Formats: sequence, C-alpha cells, structure tokens
Amino acid sequence: MTIAVQKFGGSSVADVEKIKNVARRVVESKKRIDHVVVVVSALGDTTDELLGLAGQISLSPPEREMDMLLSTGEQVSMALLAMALNELGQEAISMTGQQVEIITDTGHTKAKIRHVGAERVVQELRKGRVVVVAGFQGVTSEGEITTMGRGGSDTTAVALAASLHADYCEIYTDVDGVFTADPRVVPTAHKIEQISYMEMLEMAATGARVLQSRSVEYARNYQVPLHVRSSFHPGEGTWVKSEDDIMEKAIVSAVTHDFGEAKVTVVGVPDKPGVAARLFGALADANINVDMIIQNVSENARTDISFTASKDELEKVKKVIGELVEDLGAEGSKLDDNIAKISLVGAGMRTHPGIAAGMFKTLADNDINIEMISTSPIKISCVVGREDGEKAVKVLHEHFSL
Amino acid sequence: MTIAVQKFGGSSVADVEKIKNVARRVVESKKRIDHVVVVVSALGDTTDELLGLAGQISLSPPEREMDMLLSTGEQVSMALLAMALNELGQEAISMTGQQVEIITDTGHTKAKIRHVGAERVVQELRKGRVVVVAGFQGVTSEGEITTMGRGGSDTTAVALAASLHADYCEIYTDVDGVFTADPRVVPTAHKIEQISYMEMLEMAATGARVLQSRSVEYARNYQVPLHVRSSFHPGEGTWVKSEDDIMEKAIVSAVTHDFGEAKVTVVGVPDKPGVAARLFGALADANINVDMIIQNVSENARTDISFTASKDELEKVKKVIGELVEDLGAEGSKLDDNIAKISLVGAGMRTHPGIAAGMFKTLADNDINIEMISTSPIKISCVVGREDGEKAVKVLHEHFSL
Repeated sequence: MTIAVQKFGGSSVADVEKIKNVARRVVESKKRIDHVVVVVSALGDTTDELLGLAGQISLSPPEREMDMLLSTGEQVSMALLAMALNELGQEAISMTGQQVEIITDTGHTKAKIRHVGAERVVQELRKGRVVVVAGFQGVTSEGEITTMGRGGSDTTAVALAASLHADYCEIYTDVDGVFTADPRVVPTAHKIEQISYMEMLEMAATGARVLQSRSVEYARNYQVPLHVRSSFHPGEGTWVKSEDDIMEKAIVSAVTHDFGEAKVTVVGVPDKPGVAARLFGALADANINVDMIIQNVSENARTDISFTASKDELEKVKKVIGELVEDLGAEGSKLDDNIAKISLVGAGMRTHPGIAAGMFKTLADNDINIEMISTSPIKISCVVGREDGEKAVKVLHEHFSL
Repeated sequence: MTIAVQKFGGSSVADVEKIKNVARRVVESKKRIDHVVVVVSALGDTTDELLGLAGQISLSPPEREMDMLLSTGEQVSMALLAMALNELGQEAISMTGQQVEIITDTGHTKAKIRHVGAERVVQELRKGRVVVVAGFQGVTSEGEITTMGRGGSDTTAVALAASLHADYCEIYTDVDGVFTADPRVVPTAHKIEQISYMEMLEMAATGARVLQSRSVEYARNYQVPLHVRSSFHPGEGTWVKSEDDIMEKAIVSAVTHDFGEAKVTVVGVPDKPGVAARLFGALADANINVDMIIQNVSENARTDISFTASKDELEKVKKVIGELVEDLGAEGSKLDDNIAKISLVGAGMRTHPGIAAGMFKTLADNDINIEMISTSPIKISCVVGREDGEKAVKVLHEHFSL
C-alpha cells in the first residue's frame, strides 16, 4: 500500500489547459499508487495579481488581511483541479488548509506549521478519492487563516507527507530535477540522481532555486524522501533523501551561484567587545537576512566588518548602517553590489581534505580574485567579482569533473 | 446604541477605486452609527470569470467544488475593503462565512441559512472595529463551504442584521431606491419613500430587480427594516418595512414588468383529474420555476393549460413538454416567447375594489390585448404582447397617478 503526496507549483497550473494536464498526470499516477494527495499552488501569476491589488490600496496592509486575500489563490486552483479530475472519471475532493487541519502559529504571511491533522484526508483517501489540498495556507487554533510565505506549498506537501507517513513526496516543477550547476551557465551540467538533505539545504542556501530550504529541512526532520521532477514529462528527476540511504556518494555534488547579493563593509570599527552584536542585532531587528560575515584582522584597535545580504534588502541595509556608523564610532561604510557568490557543495568534503585548496587554486589559475571565503563541513563559498561569476562556475564544474 | 448592517454589491466594489469609495462611505457612517457591519459581494465580474474557468473544465462540475471556487470572490473583496478601511484609520477586520458562523444546509450552490452565530462579530464590534463579512457564503455544520446562489449577499446581510438585532439593514446599490416603475421605461417614475415587505415581495416576483425575494422574506420574518439606497450619493433611498409602520399607504405602489418570460400552452389536454398534477410535477422535477398558470374552460372534455416560465429555461421546458404531450394524450403544444408581464402592486388594493377593472379598462382603451390574468390580494398581473409592453407600463403608471 503506497501513499504519495504530489505537489504542483504555479507554473504547472498556470491555465486551464495546464490544469487538465496535471489532472491526466495524477490519474496516470493513481494507477501505480494506492493513495494520492495533490497539493497545488495558485494559478500562475495569481499571487502577484492579488499583491498588486492590495498594493493599490495600502503600502502596509494588515498582514491578517493579506492572508485572507492571498489564500484565495490556492482555493481557486484546488477547486479547478478537483473538477478536472472528476471530469476524467477520477473521484476527487478539494480541501482548504482549515479542512485538512494544517494548524500554524499566528505569524501571518510567514506562518509556521505546528501540527497537521489530516484525519479527514485519510477518510477521503479510503473512499478511493484523490484529495486536492490548497498549498501555502493554514489556520491558527483560533480559526484565523494564515499563509506560509513564498515556497509555502512545498512545505505543505512535505508536512502532509510526514503526517500521512507517505512513502514519498514528489515536487513537480518546470525543471527536470536538481543539477550539478545551473544549465544556463554550464551547458554540460547534468541532473543529479540522488542527493542528501544536508547537501540540498546547502545548495538552497547558496543559490539553487529548485527547492526552498524550509521544505527540505522539514523533509529531513521527518525523513520524507523527496522526488523533484518535471511536470512536463514522465522521466525520473532527483531524489533527495537521507545520507545513509545514498550508496554512491560524490565528493563534490554541485557548484552553485548566487548573483543576487551585495557586500557591505563597515570600515574602521573600534575593535572592542559588543560591536558586532550591536551591528547584527540592528540588522536582525530590521528583519534583514545576513548571509556571510567576515571580520578582518584588527589594525590600530580598528577593524573592518563585511557581510553580504540580498540586493533586494539594500535600501533597508543602507538605512540601518547609515544610522549605526556614527553610533559605533566607525569611520564609514562601503557597498559593493557587483559581486557573485560561488559555492561547492558535497557531503564527501568531510572526509576528503584538499577540496578547498583545489577550489582556490582553480580560481587563481583562472585569474579570479577571491574577496570573501566562508565554509561549512560540506560547503565552501567564495565571493568574487560579478564579472567573473559565470567563468568561476564553469571552471569549478570542470575541475571537479561534475 | 445603534447597530447597522450595510451591504455593498459587486458593482459598488468593481475596482480598487470603488472599494476606496465604499471605505470612505463606511467611515462616514461610523460617525453616526455605533456599530457597523459591512457585507460585500465579489468584485464586479469575478463570479462570472470564475464560472467561465469552471466551464472550460467541465460542463457539470461537482457543486461542492463550485462553491469552493465561487466563495473565493467575496473573500478577495472583503480583505481589500478591510485594508482600505484600516488605511483610512478605521480599524476593521474581515471574516469568512465560516468565521462568522453562517451555518447553512448542505444544498451546495443554493444553500439556505440555518443559523447565524455572530458571536465573534459582536466581540470585534465591541473593540470599535468595523466587521467586513463575505456575502453569499456559509458553511455546513460539517465544515463544508457553501454558497447561496445569486443575490445571496443580500440574504447574508439581512440574516446578520436579524442575528445582531440591528436597527436596520442598508442595501447599497447602483440605483437610488425602489421606483414606481422602471425609469428606463417610464421617465416620470419616482422613488418610493417607503413600502411594505409584502409589496416588495410582489414587486420582486413580478420583475423589479432591485431586491431578491429571499432577502425580503427573511427581512419580513425577522422584522428587519431594509433601506435600499445608492452607493454613489448620500441621499435617502427606499425603506422597506412592516405595513404597520407605514403611515400613508398608497393604493397602488408600483407598476412592474417582466419581459423575460415565455408562455407555453399545452393544447387539447383530456379534462380529467391528475393531468395538471402530472404536468407541473414533471416541470418541478426538472427544477423549472413556473410563474403564472391558467387552465381554460373545458370544451368536449378537452382543455388547454397555459403557463409562463423564464425564457432562460425554455430549452428544459421544451424537453419536458415534448416527452409529456403524448403521455398526457394532449393534442400538442404552443410556445410564445414574445410576451410581456405587466403587474400592479399595492397593499391598498385589499380595501379598494375596482383596481383590477381600472387596469383592464386602461389597457383596453389603449388597444392592448390581455392574454393571461393572475391576481393576489395586493397584485394584478396581465400578460400582453411584447410589442405592447412598454406602452402598457406607461399608461398604467399614468392612469394610477403614480
């Protein structure tokens, strides 16, 4: 008896024809799998359109009302998909987050799942029905509608799979799987057959966009195997699973890049305790996600602190830093939005020394200057100039024979 | 301490600018009224657009899924209106039918309200908030989302007003109120200041489109005064209330017309018991609403039975009649979709004899032939040829000095 959760994103249900395609795909799966639960996102650009409407009314609408508004998108697509399935002769029933009992905290627009009931889902599955669930939405224990932020539908799917003890969770998307590098940058990049949760998390954190970190983390915590695959053709995609279940481990699994960050340096900061805490505390208070942090060696009791953050948050960063420079007694600040972050990810790094050295040498041999370095047990990231970004990805992909 | 429920229809919230207008209007009301609950319909054509999407997927989608789909329309408009109110500094909170506890039966797409909880509405009102409620939708006691059919938002508003013991319920619309005749047909028609529930019910049943019968009936049962008024200017509209509360009663209140019906005659039906029952039983089974019914005097043990029904249902009617004619031993059937139903409505008719005679004479004086007649204590309806429709309304409006 197999149970699978299948998640189809916005581009897979962008219009009526695509919804019909998804329905055919699900009916096909139902021949192989005993119980199928489908999680859907909103149709194509619906979420952006709704955001646009709200934006015309208020620049800072109450987040509770944003959730009321945005949660309608998935309700439309789930109802249409349930109709399409019934039209093909496959009994199906749609359910809101509330009906499934996807209970979240009260963090409107970025709610976290606390508990998934799914009792009614099981009842409906037992009747031979396909259950179509609205992704991205939940409900607080007080009955308030919440949404989980971008990528929330993946999390819904994984959480449901965990709650149902599903055999696996399939994420249908517009790419064929997870690749050794972005194929638009490295034409020889190839699809990875299987990869561990930890590697996938590092890839997501360093620029691979195919899965959101949150859903991978959830899958890792509950040991739900993920299958990332194309919604347009039936071929196998990439399996994301426990490291123990992966037989042949690659030393380096992928080269990732992120061209969306900027580097900020606070220059001449007095080198005394509490300075970094105040700087990054202020950034955190302003809800700014900081990625890499580097503090240079102190000269004359003064030091430089550099960090990277998303270019989208640069205005907020400037505001916070502007207020802080004087406060901290720093000499000034510099901003460089012309950078690229290039990372190597691989579980085998833990046991194979010399990968970092190989990375630095490869970059040096190609005249690429390294501005920042940061490492984890299974990842090395280097910041280089934006103009060297694509070249760095290519030469590293080649050097490590991916 | 006054409580009012205000309902704004789809044309009043057709776009962002109109939603902002409604918000200003509500803020204005809040200065005069202690507690304001607003009921909204879906934005402009949203419902039709959603119906269009469903229609591309299935010709007979499951009604449960239709309700899932259609109920999103009101959820969008209520969230946007709540945002607009907050933007104006008026604290507001939106609520779905489920959150309000508008409990309906399980008749998907045409559900009937069983009970309105409204406890949470009261809590929010006590905090000084305006509560914005999604019209048209409810929830079954099992948590299934239902909708109440066209005009359902009016019913939501009246039911909420009854449950909250509101002082009155205002229906904001794109006309100034209820008129003595359709101003497009009779330019001298004027707005009625007050009218009884019963008269309003007869007007709705005979072609006046401003209010749905169901909401008027609900208002009558719970003695909720209705105020039908323009959403575009602040002038008073028409009050619909108990006959006892109306001081100056008009003998004839209005002339209404319905150009959307057709007349069907089953010819040469054997004049024996049970024939009419079978005919109208079959029509009821096919869910066809029959309006007027007339059976002519019997000749040679055979009779003609005529009835009117909406032109929209003509295809269904033809099918039922086609199957029945032979079955009933009738000689055949005739269909005339070139008719107009003209009605006089007035509570004073009960005590003033001669109104019917006056109506027939006025029509005769103007060479208008009457094809069918039907009466109630406060209404007389005549079917005439479609080509005489406008003229009939005009001459009757003039004759009864409306």
